[in-house]
Amino acid sequence: MNIKKIHHRRSLCSISFSLEMIGDLWSLLIVRDIIYFGKKTYGDLLSSGEGIARNILATRLVQLRQKGILTRKPHPTDGRKDVYELTEKGLDLIPLLLDMAAWGAKHEPETAVSEAWLQEVHIGKEALIQLIRETVQEGGSIFVGKDTVLSKLQNAK
Amino acid sequence: MNIKKIHHRRSLCSISFSLEMIGDLWSLLIVRDIIYFGKKTYGDLLSSGEGIARNILATRLVQLRQKGILTRKPHPTDGRKDVYELTEKGLDLIPLLLDMAAWGAKHEPETAVSEAWLQEVHIGKEALIQLIRETVQEGGSIFVGKDTVLSKLQNAK
Repeated sequence: MNIKKIHHRRSLCSISFSLEMIGDLWSLLIVRDIIYFGKKTYGDLLSSGEGIARNILATRLVQLRQKGILTRKPHPTDGRKDVYELTEKGLDLIPLLLDMAAWGAKHEPETAVSEAWLQEVHIGKEALIQLIRETVQEGGSIFVGKDTVLSKLQNAK
Repeated sequence: MNIKKIHHRRSLCSISFSLEMIGDLWSLLIVRDIIYFGKKTYGDLLSSGEGIARNILATRLVQLRQKGILTRKPHPTDGRKDVYELTEKGLDLIPLLLDMAAWGAKHEPETAVSEAWLQEVHIGKEALIQLIRETVQEGGSIFVGKDTVLSKLQNAK
């Protein structure tokens, strides 16, 4: 399948462009699941907390590849599976996700964000973004896996 | 009309909450038009660069009020009009819009963001967010009006 496609833009505004690329509930939750929880395969991503439907997940994975946010490659040990990884463009969404987490936590106190985590986000945002970026590129994530951002932050104290 | 409504949440994740609140192309473009271009009335907002339809604009204005992001009050001089203003919750979306503008400008070079403006955003983000916030609260905006963020930044040099 040719995943390149000319995308009609509504305007030359960079915010409008960003919203056309990622202004979709499910697309950003897929990116979140990769960055926060280290999900890598279709099966991993299907088990999101929000209960994404199979057809929606499949469509969004194609769209995210068309948009240059995800790449797909064969699983290193399981020939039946593919592994999805964030491109540089996808990794550049980390600041946006951190802002969304902070906004959501401030305006909906019931949502699950630890105070300690928010403090970290507040204290050194640029450093935190870089740490998350490197960890995800190495195959880790913020919360789940062997080398998490959370454990790195705790060890650094 | 009673604009309070119980909102069913998909999960306790604060990113998911944020996406349910503002993960919609038109909702965030309305917030952008207020912050960047100082738009205040239904008529102002109808003339967005992306060509929003009348019914979509009307629906989104109700939803943004239900979500506590906008308030509506009578126009001070024109009794036929209402004025829409951002609440604190709405003003807290400024960092997200700046990140979206930066992401869009980086990954779609054709979009309209001046290099100088991106430099400002990069140099002192916290100070810039505060300046935008105060300017919008005083009735101004980033680009349009008497006291713009842009003119304040230029005068400060």
